[in-house]
Amino acid sequence: MNRRRVFYTLGLILDTEAVLMLIPAIVSLIYGELRSASMILLSSAVAAAVGSLMMLICRKRRSAIYAKEGFVIVALAWLSMTLFGALPFIFTGELGVIDAIFETASGFTTTGASVVTSFETMSKGVLFWRSATHWIGGMGVLVLMMAILPSDTEGSVHILRAEVPGPTFGKFVPKIKKTALILYLLYIGLSAVETIMLLFGGMDLFESLIYTFGTAGTGGFGLSGTSLTNYNPYIQWVVGIFMVMFGVNFNLYYLVIMGKIRTALKSRELWLYLGIIGSSVAIITIHMHNLYQTFGDNLRTSFFQVASIVTTTGFATADFDTWTGISRAVLFMLYFVGSCAGSTAGGIKVSRVILLGKIIRRDLRHMVHPHSVGVVKFEGRRVDDNTLRGVTSFFVLYCAVLGSVFLLLSLFEPDTDMITNMTASMATLNNVGPGLGKVGPYMGYSFYSVGSKIVLSLSMLFGRLEIYPLILALSPGLWRRK
Amino acid sequence: MNRRRVFYTLGLILDTEAVLMLIPAIVSLIYGELRSASMILLSSAVAAAVGSLMMLICRKRRSAIYAKEGFVIVALAWLSMTLFGALPFIFTGELGVIDAIFETASGFTTTGASVVTSFETMSKGVLFWRSATHWIGGMGVLVLMMAILPSDTEGSVHILRAEVPGPTFGKFVPKIKKTALILYLLYIGLSAVETIMLLFGGMDLFESLIYTFGTAGTGGFGLSGTSLTNYNPYIQWVVGIFMVMFGVNFNLYYLVIMGKIRTALKSRELWLYLGIIGSSVAIITIHMHNLYQTFGDNLRTSFFQVASIVTTTGFATADFDTWTGISRAVLFMLYFVGSCAGSTAGGIKVSRVILLGKIIRRDLRHMVHPHSVGVVKFEGRRVDDNTLRGVTSFFVLYCAVLGSVFLLLSLFEPDTDMITNMTASMATLNNVGPGLGKVGPYMGYSFYSVGSKIVLSLSMLFGRLEIYPLILALSPGLWRRK
Repeated sequence: MNRRRVFYTLGLILDTEAVLMLIPAIVSLIYGELRSASMILLSSAVAAAVGSLMMLICRKRRSAIYAKEGFVIVALAWLSMTLFGALPFIFTGELGVIDAIFETASGFTTTGASVVTSFETMSKGVLFWRSATHWIGGMGVLVLMMAILPSDTEGSVHILRAEVPGPTFGKFVPKIKKTALILYLLYIGLSAVETIMLLFGGMDLFESLIYTFGTAGTGGFGLSGTSLTNYNPYIQWVVGIFMVMFGVNFNLYYLVIMGKIRTALKSRELWLYLGIIGSSVAIITIHMHNLYQTFGDNLRTSFFQVASIVTTTGFATADFDTWTGISRAVLFMLYFVGSCAGSTAGGIKVSRVILLGKIIRRDLRHMVHPHSVGVVKFEGRRVDDNTLRGVTSFFVLYCAVLGSVFLLLSLFEPDTDMITNMTASMATLNNVGPGLGKVGPYMGYSFYSVGSKIVLSLSMLFGRLEIYPLILALSPGLWRRK
Repeated sequence: MNRRRVFYTLGLILDTEAVLMLIPAIVSLIYGELRSASMILLSSAVAAAVGSLMMLICRKRRSAIYAKEGFVIVALAWLSMTLFGALPFIFTGELGVIDAIFETASGFTTTGASVVTSFETMSKGVLFWRSATHWIGGMGVLVLMMAILPSDTEGSVHILRAEVPGPTFGKFVPKIKKTALILYLLYIGLSAVETIMLLFGGMDLFESLIYTFGTAGTGGFGLSGTSLTNYNPYIQWVVGIFMVMFGVNFNLYYLVIMGKIRTALKSRELWLYLGIIGSSVAIITIHMHNLYQTFGDNLRTSFFQVASIVTTTGFATADFDTWTGISRAVLFMLYFVGSCAGSTAGGIKVSRVILLGKIIRRDLRHMVHPHSVGVVKFEGRRVDDNTLRGVTSFFVLYCAVLGSVFLLLSLFEPDTDMITNMTASMATLNNVGPGLGKVGPYMGYSFYSVGSKIVLSLSMLFGRLEIYPLILALSPGLWRRK
């Protein structure tokens, strides 16, 4: 383990975070919140000081980053970003220490599970930072760092691979730095379009930005306990459609920009993703029994909720916990699917679901014809055995983590009903946010005990980083000196 | 596909079932239930007639059984055994057609989920047959057939492999026929000991046999809606301990008989199995908060329920649905684990859980050291890649079937709560029996609609046959003529 290099990079990340914190400080100033502004500046200063100290002590030497350093950097980066990102909440006194850490983990991991009970008492600056963490966490801080800072590309691929969600990372441009930059430009472009469209719907700039951050990062933090329920249909359609768009693999947008629209439309993952959304909306709309006024209302409400869950955003325009059994069961299953690889969404990812299906089909064929050679193809290319093994063992590990979170939660919360604990585990590990029961879309996570909040924060980080980096960073074997 | 051979074997199985049905007819005669006796005899006659006709039409020709015939024979055997095994319930009028099929599927698959609402109105003969299906299904009808009938061993291994639960089938004796015979002798021996011990506890012979059948097959059918709650502590300890014993891999008993006790005690699966039981009992007993009279009562009650769920038997001495969150969560997780491979229990099996853990560890190591050669060992021997692939794809398929059952159930039962539908799916697929909520240990499955009962019956068969045979038998490609 190359410790100096790891901690040097961590220092760089803290400094980046410190710079990013200046924006909410400015927001606070604009709204005349002097106390908040100074407290956010203080947080920024603390992060900058610690970060710079780390960079100074572990000054850069020419040394390589291998897979294991990549995992460790990503894991520790997210842990320290969460701890330092919690400072604005703590210094302003708007949240307690554990609540602040929970809220920041929920923000960066784009989960959107919240412990905030009264939005009125929070300052605009802190609310801005809270939602900005979604936007930052959606594409990833390390990707951002690579995009803007000069760095040796050697080794960066390991970091990118560990931070970008999904089973494969499409190397669509040869240079890592250029890849990261293109990803961020697309991200900024789409976000800007959504902000402008929301402004047209009657939101002010602050609101538009908050909800754009929540949509783009597939996060879910809003500005009230009822999320987007009381906004007009136009706003709900815009947010709904942009949620779906941010759940698409960003490589496809790049292909479209390059004029390769036909190649982009050949993506099986895209069509299955849209198919899952379409059929879920159909099933739920049919079973709405005119719960809402018109057919249009039923359609919009079911589309919004399906888009929100499948993209693991977690916004709500209705309390889906009151829907019929089949609708809730469909949403329940969507928690696991998630969106496309290479998007900002959480969950297992559609491409993994496709690969799992293909693996099963290959193995069934193998049982009947033991001498057949099973080749699995995806998006027209042969998938090598290592990737396939990775997909199945990710799924097994994912189930194991889910079970452990649920067991720990049940241990800490003996009096909370099983559906609440179960969906809270699912909603955090898949980075969705709201669950059912006491963590339903109009409820929050504030009632959970300190122990549970720590478990749930870890669950969110496990989900966002797709488990491996955190587990590897926690295994002592990795830290041993040669 | 060698259809003649498949249907010839199916005929043979129906004839075997017809012979087995003579025993409950005799029981009915002993209790003076003339109408029941004649109806059970009629059922036997129908099965015998159809079976003999099939054997006559598809007269045996020298032809080989390959893997695919093995799967198809097992799948169709279990389906037809279920349909013909339902006749005594139907002919006596004690259950409706769908209920009878559900109850028989539940019996043969050793699930123990019941739609019986009043035990008083049922005849002794039919109750005997109901529980006897547990005993027959526990070890498997095809294994029985091989044990008693002269047959070519060539090809039988494919049948045995498809019917005996667990990822591997230990070839501890070279001859299939001898293996099957030894398995059955062990099974009969253990059952006889339990029956005698229950007689000492004050049960009459009928009761002792019923509860032995339920224990030995890890089934769970009893003689009242409260299962074993109102029996004395001695009976509860005996049944509890025998449940644990029937969850052990039968190969180990064979080793003990052969004097190889030290080899038997080296089994990692055995120790993990006992460890899971021990730690679950400890956690639940601690969280009992003296719900029952004494510490002994708390210990016995938690041990009994843990043993019942982990062995997928489903007997109950308490309504565990009323326990605290952590206790219910522990039981919830035990639903999935199941017992040892090569036992009569359902579930994923401890050996698969061990292998899944080892696969994850290997793949984690591979991520850090990409050039490492990952060898997985189990019980001292290297496990080949095919078996490992089989274990992971079984797990994926298992989750897919569980999700589908839950979705279908939610579709058919929009008004039933999620915990009920979810645990009903788990309890049938893992062959446990009782779930939580409306299918709790003191409740039954009678309220479910016809569609749901069919889905749940299939779920039980999927669970008992470990999915593959049924899926393969249902795939049209397998039936195509060359």
